[in-house]
Amino acid sequence: MIGFVGGTGPEGRGLALRFCMAGEQVLIGSRDPTRAAQAANGVRAETDNGSVSGTSNDDAARKADTIFIAVPYTAQRDTLTDLRDSLDGKVVVSVVAPLAFSKGVASALPVAEGSAALETQALLPGSTVAAAFQTVSAHDLLEANKPLDSDVIVCSEDKAARELVMGLAEKISGVRAVDGGGLANAGYVESLTPLLLNLNRRYKARSAIRITGI
Amino acid sequence: MIGFVGGTGPEGRGLALRFCMAGEQVLIGSRDPTRAAQAANGVRAETDNGSVSGTSNDDAARKADTIFIAVPYTAQRDTLTDLRDSLDGKVVVSVVAPLAFSKGVASALPVAEGSAALETQALLPGSTVAAAFQTVSAHDLLEANKPLDSDVIVCSEDKAARELVMGLAEKISGVRAVDGGGLANAGYVESLTPLLLNLNRRYKARSAIRITGI
Repeated sequence: MIGFVGGTGPEGRGLALRFCMAGEQVLIGSRDPTRAAQAANGVRAETDNGSVSGTSNDDAARKADTIFIAVPYTAQRDTLTDLRDSLDGKVVVSVVAPLAFSKGVASALPVAEGSAALETQALLPGSTVAAAFQTVSAHDLLEANKPLDSDVIVCSEDKAARELVMGLAEKISGVRAVDGGGLANAGYVESLTPLLLNLNRRYKARSAIRITGI
Repeated sequence: MIGFVGGTGPEGRGLALRFCMAGEQVLIGSRDPTRAAQAANGVRAETDNGSVSGTSNDDAARKADTIFIAVPYTAQRDTLTDLRDSLDGKVVVSVVAPLAFSKGVASALPVAEGSAALETQALLPGSTVAAAFQTVSAHDLLEANKPLDSDVIVCSEDKAARELVMGLAEKISGVRAVDGGGLANAGYVESLTPLLLNLNRRYKARSAIRITGI
């Protein structure tokens, strides 16, 4: 089962929808289980495949084997500290890019640990952390019938976790998974998010990336 | 005329070759004019188009209108401090990505100004700084007959400089130029370089990027 912490935001709902479409069992967690249930209803309205329901963040963390962290970066530390025991022994996938906005322009927030992913690993020493999907547009994910045109770079120190998440990524139409190696590379992927958001603004588009030559 | 500071390294030689192939007049600068002349001979052996010669960094900076800075990041501050007067009033294009290697693994070096490009602008207040080509493989550039499969993201505060460098980028077969907006975005592009180098090592390939959706 795939869980989402902070699953009522656009990125969480978008990924939940795509995994549900692929036949997966999905649990959308939120601080507010009522909002989580609404988000699950929204997903269910888009697809008959898989299964989806809403619950608390803690329940999603406890019941799922693979848990996506889709909270805003500013909520990451408090959220993960609270859920540390529930996430112990699990594969935890960070989709977080540390961002700030000023007058519509995105910029990367500095992170003492080097990246949101490395901070996640530091906060969750008993979990196997991976990082992926930071560059994928939530709006695109939420358009159920739209194939993406994007690579998803998956980083983790754990090869099995990388392969698991790469397999999940390729369940999404139009996505190719790229093996990004260890978690030290996740910060470079996180840095792409403000660049893509700023390109979106300039080009009035939804940009994504492809790695060529591999 | 297009000048190169630090033009005897692979990235400088590769860009010099491609611009020469496109019919441009190219001046390869180096601390050692003899090595610059050798590099120019190497370019001339590959193409009859354009013109190319070797000289000192300072002479390249003085004679050219558009000067590419292709030194390793660790040499950037000293080199630009020495050339400040010669680069005054010119368009200066940083291709520098601040990198370190440990056991073959690339990592981004922290830069106080935020990026090599912003440091360049701070060191050269009288120049118009742009940043581009950080993600393009020097090895690919040096294979004269190989079309690239890459976008080049061009950043500058100055719209005319962006358009100038975008035009130069698109002279290279297989390159699409992307308007990356202001220089604050250049650091995100610089961060891609260690990611791509680490992917090259993992995939035994020469990777590059494309921005999709624009």
